Amino acid sequence: MKVQTLYGPVQDDLVFVERAIDQIREVDLPPLALMLENVLAGGGKRVRPALALLAGTFGVYDLERLVFLAASIELLHTATLVHDDVIDNAATRRGRPTANFLYNNAVSVMIGDFLFAHAADLAARVGSVRVVQLFSRTLMRIVTGELDQDTGAFDASKRISDYLARIGGKTASLFGTACEGGAIAAGAPEEYVERLRDYGFNLGMTFQIVDDILDFSGDEAVMGKPAGSDLMQGTLTLPSLLLMEDAPGDNVVTRLFAARRNKAQRLQDALDAVRSSDVLTRSQAFADEYTRRALAAIAPLPDTPAKRTLIELPAALLTRES
Amino acid sequence: MKVQTLYGPVQDDLVFVERAIDQIREVDLPPLALMLENVLAGGGKRVRPALALLAGTFGVYDLERLVFLAASIELLHTATLVHDDVIDNAATRRGRPTANFLYNNAVSVMIGDFLFAHAADLAARVGSVRVVQLFSRTLMRIVTGELDQDTGAFDASKRISDYLARIGGKTASLFGTACEGGAIAAGAPEEYVERLRDYGFNLGMTFQIVDDILDFSGDEAVMGKPAGSDLMQGTLTLPSLLLMEDAPGDNVVTRLFAARRNKAQRLQDALDAVRSSDVLTRSQAFADEYTRRALAAIAPLPDTPAKRTLIELPAALLTRES
Repeated sequence: MKVQTLYGPVQDDLVFVERAIDQIREVDLPPLALMLENVLAGGGKRVRPALALLAGTFGVYDLERLVFLAASIELLHTATLVHDDVIDNAATRRGRPTANFLYNNAVSVMIGDFLFAHAADLAARVGSVRVVQLFSRTLMRIVTGELDQDTGAFDASKRISDYLARIGGKTASLFGTACEGGAIAAGAPEEYVERLRDYGFNLGMTFQIVDDILDFSGDEAVMGKPAGSDLMQGTLTLPSLLLMEDAPGDNVVTRLFAARRNKAQRLQDALDAVRSSDVLTRSQAFADEYTRRALAAIAPLPDTPAKRTLIELPAALLTRES
Repeated sequence: MKVQTLYGPVQDDLVFVERAIDQIREVDLPPLALMLENVLAGGGKRVRPALALLAGTFGVYDLERLVFLAASIELLHTATLVHDDVIDNAATRRGRPTANFLYNNAVSVMIGDFLFAHAADLAARVGSVRVVQLFSRTLMRIVTGELDQDTGAFDASKRISDYLARIGGKTASLFGTACEGGAIAAGAPEEYVERLRDYGFNLGMTFQIVDDILDFSGDEAVMGKPAGSDLMQGTLTLPSLLLMEDAPGDNVVTRLFAARRNKAQRLQDALDAVRSSDVLTRSQAFADEYTRRALAAIAPLPDTPAKRTLIELPAALLTRES
């Protein structure tokens, strides 16, 4: 848990965020309680709540308000993941769904909605209308990014600029909102609010690009999913887009998308091509550039333990293996 | 359009609510714009927005804030309908889904989320943290009611008290919130806020019970769906629960739920049994009782055109044919 120790001055306060998240499992409906336990277990790195708390140190660090915000951000994230699973399952199992799968699908929709409701409730408890609007507009951006990914699947005309816009909405916007919301909730100066939002957004871009690199280069056992899963779902990410840019027209990706048979072999061809080329290194350079922008955004902030933590965070995320 | 003319003093202001709803269709993503147009077209009776505006007349009638609230309530309602369709489709087509159906399913989830985001944004624009919390807690109640219906499908041990609790969450809570939110947004006295919420909640109970009666007695051509669709999805409503209470153990409903073959005939048996008994009349008596409670709740309010409209509204809803 290398990342966990990097949350520095707010590390210990994350336990209150966990408690706030745990509280929403106390519901009257037994099947719902069980499902929430499954969805909320596992924990994850809690990087978004940590960002909210860290940003809050640049104003008046009101722990109660910041915990409401941090828990709200994490539940919003979890809700979008739950609904994402509905979509990804639909794509992965296209053509051969089971009744059990459909039942879970329907329930997943409601669980996600329940989490949205709690996320909105916690956002309201921060006591700032601006925070609620930030929350709702971030959800719009995330959903628009997801819809763009969904409706654009298997569309080989997508460009790198489309990809960057999509991950900006799907991932980076919530990182930015975690930082911006924390700064607003703490009443930080407006200049700090903007700088922290820019830091979060650019860190989120780095985070997603590294995630997309790992889909090609990562250890399947560590990641818990097969390599190349994005391509199999028709999602073009930075490495495959760079590869297509090098060979427009006929290339391993367009051949995979066009294949009606031997899909596994076509996927292996694409994976081999990506790994034996320089596109992963070039993708890493994109990630490094966003890290540079994140660090530049907060350079003028006062030198505090929280700032030093923010400076160290990108490197920790960039060197992760899953 | 008998109901439309019954919104009295706020009838003309509903056009601003329509405009606020139309505005959310202005999005950059062309496929999303098209889907939103489909989802938001049709209009419906807009009874919830009308209730919000009517309740707002009992305080300072600030049209801009009330329109934000009314549009928010209607979008929240639309979002839950969209997600409901995912679940109902899953149940109806269980075992034989098409790829196209799955694709729509996935997109429906995102469209619903997008509408939630806009609903939350509009709720925040009312400028009251209390309104946002009311909004988020209502969503929790709706979702819990839906989950209860979903996980309790084909459960013949359900009782009338379960049914009343379920429709309270699924339908009546949003009617109550429309009235309560309108009164809060207008800064009405606290006593009025509570009385209007009670009115809305009880009106919502009437509305749902009449809806459930129509599922047995309504004209299929007018309703646009076959009679008995609730029973086919395993949902016990007031008429079928009253029938089961009269004949616990072996009855037409338990036989339908247990049937592995001849389901159409079993459904027809159940419909015939409901229609030839007194359970629809007794269900109507439940609806009348909730109407009585709704009217009693607002009896002490000052005599205004809006109050007279609220008094006439239940009769209009009770005599509808679809």
